[in-house]
Amino acid sequence: MRGLELRAGEVRFRADLERPAPAPGECRVRVTRAGVCATDLALARGYMGFAGVPGHEFVGVALDGPLAGRRVVGEINAGCGRCKSCAAGLERHCPTRTVLGILGRPGAFAEELALPAGNLHPVPDAVPDDAAVFAEPLAAAFEIPAQVDLAAVGSALVLGDGRLGLLCAQVLALHGLPVHLYGRHPERAELLPSGCRHLGPPPAAAPAARYDLVVEATGDPAMLQRALLFVRPRGMLVLKTTSERPAPLDLAPLVVDEITVVGSRCGPFAPALEALAAGSVAVLPLIHARFPLEEGPRALARASQPGTLKVLLDVEQEYP
Amino acid sequence: MRGLELRAGEVRFRADLERPAPAPGECRVRVTRAGVCATDLALARGYMGFAGVPGHEFVGVALDGPLAGRRVVGEINAGCGRCKSCAAGLERHCPTRTVLGILGRPGAFAEELALPAGNLHPVPDAVPDDAAVFAEPLAAAFEIPAQVDLAAVGSALVLGDGRLGLLCAQVLALHGLPVHLYGRHPERAELLPSGCRHLGPPPAAAPAARYDLVVEATGDPAMLQRALLFVRPRGMLVLKTTSERPAPLDLAPLVVDEITVVGSRCGPFAPALEALAAGSVAVLPLIHARFPLEEGPRALARASQPGTLKVLLDVEQEYP
Repeated sequence: MRGLELRAGEVRFRADLERPAPAPGECRVRVTRAGVCATDLALARGYMGFAGVPGHEFVGVALDGPLAGRRVVGEINAGCGRCKSCAAGLERHCPTRTVLGILGRPGAFAEELALPAGNLHPVPDAVPDDAAVFAEPLAAAFEIPAQVDLAAVGSALVLGDGRLGLLCAQVLALHGLPVHLYGRHPERAELLPSGCRHLGPPPAAAPAARYDLVVEATGDPAMLQRALLFVRPRGMLVLKTTSERPAPLDLAPLVVDEITVVGSRCGPFAPALEALAAGSVAVLPLIHARFPLEEGPRALARASQPGTLKVLLDVEQEYP
Repeated sequence: MRGLELRAGEVRFRADLERPAPAPGECRVRVTRAGVCATDLALARGYMGFAGVPGHEFVGVALDGPLAGRRVVGEINAGCGRCKSCAAGLERHCPTRTVLGILGRPGAFAEELALPAGNLHPVPDAVPDDAAVFAEPLAAAFEIPAQVDLAAVGSALVLGDGRLGLLCAQVLALHGLPVHLYGRHPERAELLPSGCRHLGPPPAAAPAARYDLVVEATGDPAMLQRALLFVRPRGMLVLKTTSERPAPLDLAPLVVDEITVVGSRCGPFAPALEALAAGSVAVLPLIHARFPLEEGPRALARASQPGTLKVLLDVEQEYP
């Protein structure tokens, strides 16, 4: 089949890839559209030591299983189904999990992928493919209300106005919070709903205001040190940035101010799909470019350019 | 008065120090005994840029105020009394606070100190001076149950068998938790109550067991990276180590495993004094050495030696 392959730090288009062989209980999905994520760019730089077909944001059509023939999106972590984490419904923390296009499982930048049947979610008719492809990163933003009691939060700040930062700000605003956002692109204020305020680039010195909740979504590990300055004593910092680079960090402020730092990764698909169907989160304005699958390497190069929001791959051109 | 003074990185004994001048609402305390803490050693190396009388672990006799004539211990943070933090009873997070012997307030390594009346707690008769001097570090250990819902914790690990690590392990065991502890001094197993198990030095590789709750109390900022490996996915790491040195830190495991890190500093005195009165926490075996106030510099040198637990300063030799 046609698809992209990451090997030895290089992503190439190939027309002769093996179709993934679904294990028992897994379904095949014909991929319609896929999104490029910062993690894909990190993988190409060596993060996780991944080789094979990358890509984990997708919408497609289930070819078999209970959702055969329907448009689907999919959770990317596949657990063993037998361990304590899986029994608790936390397959995404199974110690022997595979992760679509990230760890031990071919990904979505190809004509076909395979995932356990339980990972797939039908896409509501009201959600076009271009929006459905945001289900996975939007679910990651919905992980914040799943981890933090937002009812106890009076003020929130998002650091970073990239793809994930903008989604996180929208999700927090959806929960009725006044949201401030620091980022390098003040013109992106127009991508935010009323209730969100873009404050421009983050100040270099200690800020005047400190917040109950700060979400770090800049992708820059060096930002964490400054992020601690924005959290009020006993407040909470949600860390969305995964980075392949360690950064020097002085944690004394964390201890002195008794700040709670919460690592936050993949999230629940149900509220993400609901928000897309209701149109309560705007994702289409985040699309900056699209490329056919054959031009995948160019798509990744474009996604790497500073200031680029979402880049899509049209895996199947004429759908349905 | 007699006391120790830190200036330009050196701690010296002086017989000609000014007595602290109590502000309105503050009480004078004649110090009986004081304890040397790792923070005192860090201050001498330049942490916080402190100059003046160090020391914040003490027991003494109130010379005036509502507790005049009684033995007292004292909370070390003095808030402004007017801000939001102070109004919420969190004087220890007041942005303009002073801290006894640490920040803007002369400390306990001298004949007299001054603190707001509300900071002082009477010492129950059952608690001898040598135990009462542990009220402050023991309160810091009792901050863990104040921050973490221990009822939801099934397994706990303490990293570090120094002063604070041993106190934290005892407090967790007091709450009915089975506690494991890694540290460089296996012989200190005898200082732990039944229910605590000393596992020897921490393993260099990833451990077999991961815990719901890990308390980092080694004092070594480089340990944090390894500490993340001991926490189960979605588990909690309580950070007790304050260090003046930044350490390189790769936070990807925190995000991937969605770990919560809680900074933890000073704690509530009431449960600490109750535990000391009930004898449910053993502190006297932690005393490794004692020196008269005049030999303060030797006391700090002794406390700096690897393997030393608590060093006391006998500020007033014949009490009462």
